[in-house]
Amino acid sequence: MKRRQFIRGAGAATVAAGAMMSSKAMAAPEFKWKMVTTWPKNFPGLGTGANQLAEMINKMSNGRIQVKVYGAGELVGALEIFDAVSRGTAEMGHGASYYWKGKSTAAQFFAAVPFGLTAQEMNAWLYQGGGMELWEEVYDKFGLVPGAAGNTGVQMGGWFNKEINGVEDLKGLKMRIPGLGGEVLKRAGGTPVLLPGGEIFPSLQSGAIDATEWVGPYNDMAFGLHKAAKYYYYPGWHEPGTTLECFINKEAFMALPEDLQIIVRNALRVANQDMLAEFMTKNNQALDQLVNKHGVELRNFPDDVMIKLREISDQVVAEEAEKDEMTKKVYDSFVQFRDQVQKWTAVSEQAYINGRSLG
Amino acid sequence: MKRRQFIRGAGAATVAAGAMMSSKAMAAPEFKWKMVTTWPKNFPGLGTGANQLAEMINKMSNGRIQVKVYGAGELVGALEIFDAVSRGTAEMGHGASYYWKGKSTAAQFFAAVPFGLTAQEMNAWLYQGGGMELWEEVYDKFGLVPGAAGNTGVQMGGWFNKEINGVEDLKGLKMRIPGLGGEVLKRAGGTPVLLPGGEIFPSLQSGAIDATEWVGPYNDMAFGLHKAAKYYYYPGWHEPGTTLECFINKEAFMALPEDLQIIVRNALRVANQDMLAEFMTKNNQALDQLVNKHGVELRNFPDDVMIKLREISDQVVAEEAEKDEMTKKVYDSFVQFRDQVQKWTAVSEQAYINGRSLG
Repeated sequence: MKRRQFIRGAGAATVAAGAMMSSKAMAAPEFKWKMVTTWPKNFPGLGTGANQLAEMINKMSNGRIQVKVYGAGELVGALEIFDAVSRGTAEMGHGASYYWKGKSTAAQFFAAVPFGLTAQEMNAWLYQGGGMELWEEVYDKFGLVPGAAGNTGVQMGGWFNKEINGVEDLKGLKMRIPGLGGEVLKRAGGTPVLLPGGEIFPSLQSGAIDATEWVGPYNDMAFGLHKAAKYYYYPGWHEPGTTLECFINKEAFMALPEDLQIIVRNALRVANQDMLAEFMTKNNQALDQLVNKHGVELRNFPDDVMIKLREISDQVVAEEAEKDEMTKKVYDSFVQFRDQVQKWTAVSEQAYINGRSLG
Repeated sequence: MKRRQFIRGAGAATVAAGAMMSSKAMAAPEFKWKMVTTWPKNFPGLGTGANQLAEMINKMSNGRIQVKVYGAGELVGALEIFDAVSRGTAEMGHGASYYWKGKSTAAQFFAAVPFGLTAQEMNAWLYQGGGMELWEEVYDKFGLVPGAAGNTGVQMGGWFNKEINGVEDLKGLKMRIPGLGGEVLKRAGGTPVLLPGGEIFPSLQSGAIDATEWVGPYNDMAFGLHKAAKYYYYPGWHEPGTTLECFINKEAFMALPEDLQIIVRNALRVANQDMLAEFMTKNNQALDQLVNKHGVELRNFPDDVMIKLREISDQVVAEEAEKDEMTKKVYDSFVQFRDQVQKWTAVSEQAYINGRSLG
């Protein structure tokens, strides 16, 4: 309580008379919320994004909502947050929707699917193409209100100790790659391996696995993966614009007055954009260090590999859609949007970026 | 003062009574603001974006700030908004910073320069790469607080009645293209023409001009440009991710309590992302109609044209930077960021989008 008074004092001193009253209103939080996350506390980009989101809600609501963030395992385990928020143990959860595919196959489409949408296309689908309404429908039966709350942008293909010069090199490849990406690799003849974060580095170093994907330069460098692999392949065909999420216990959300509901929804939107800007900047800086300081060798997946992976991905994702009616509905919307927006991307982002790098 | 007590009281009651009180608190605005814009009232994407921004501020502040939007000419002329907000005639202005290059050469870099940043790169520079701090420095001497408040994404190259098959076809080309893009065309041997919006269509139809740029499919189709030209060229090398702005009279901004300042700043951030999502979706739909319903012929600028235009653009933009110290400072930051971020874009967005469209 003392701390709040200190803030109030500092606030009042710095602003003009008109500003004073609202800082006084900062006194007593009306809503004390917990945000549980799937990330280790302060994990770069993802965990820090959750912290910034909580801080933004605190500030925009002038302290009327006070959100306290818990790292994975602090209150509940990383993969327990969905249930915890669903039953009201915490009011908010910060994660990625493909973690919940066991509860809802459809959920995967709101994070990333192989050969899906880029961050910019994803935002267009969610905010303007009907995606957000579908996401709300999917989460509603769990008593949750979902929202996009960050994006990594296109991830990297991964760290390899084996060269990939053609489709045949995928055969027998032992790679740590979870989810639908793993299923695609399997059908291409590889062996997807599931490993918890802590075992990735030693497995790569010992040769127990030939390759691993993680996130992008920023997180991968912090993880030291460049010390255990020869080649850094791109692009991350399996995660082309991964959307992070923040979901809210519906009962808690509905108990907010309308202005606070709007503040929370908009805080998520700001967080969504901010994280992408952060990843873009930090990945860019880390890539520079990896290449110019650590001598990492960048490799582009060959064309025939990309074509093959896309072909298999389209099959795998289409099969997911057949699992239940809701997934089919989401899939149809997603694929229709992707197939059409690609034509616009082709004459805008793609044509410009390619044209800019000519000569 | 009574009103503030009322709000506080309402806040306390809200906790017990649910969401009802907040609509009551909406009664009396503490800050009645005017937003003047450079757009015709409700102009698709740009004017509607300004409306949505005002509405968001009204709602997030629970009516404590009430922003009323004025179309171009309603309160002041389109190109008078900068001065009007600077002197306090209105509290907010919605436009694009390159309109103010007569007041500050540096301002152009916060909207778009030829062969500059894409929307995603621009947000990274502004929010994470020091761009926003520079923008604040540039506008501070005019008593304005700036913010990014929208993005069109990559625009189109324009509508042409002459084929562009090589650099030599730019010679003698009479094209409506303002600003630095016009200067680039001039040095490539063309004739940039300045025309107000209303004269573009008849001039293109009569052959008084050979070509015109405008925005992208969404706005261009509404303007009927497809009825007056044969070819629709891409990409918009001169506006690769145009940032729209909302600036605020600094004195008015500083008179807001801290929570309302944060609400206004974040509303701008939401507007920035929302407009891009809207343009992406609507451009995509309009492109489909232009091609499949109106039979528009899409053309990609040839490689040698893109290379030549980039070469000239780099010269033109570098010359702008020499005009004053502040512009040089902004240019250095912008170019350094662009040159580095391109390397990340190459292995992420570019590699993925190209890989996805193979085969």
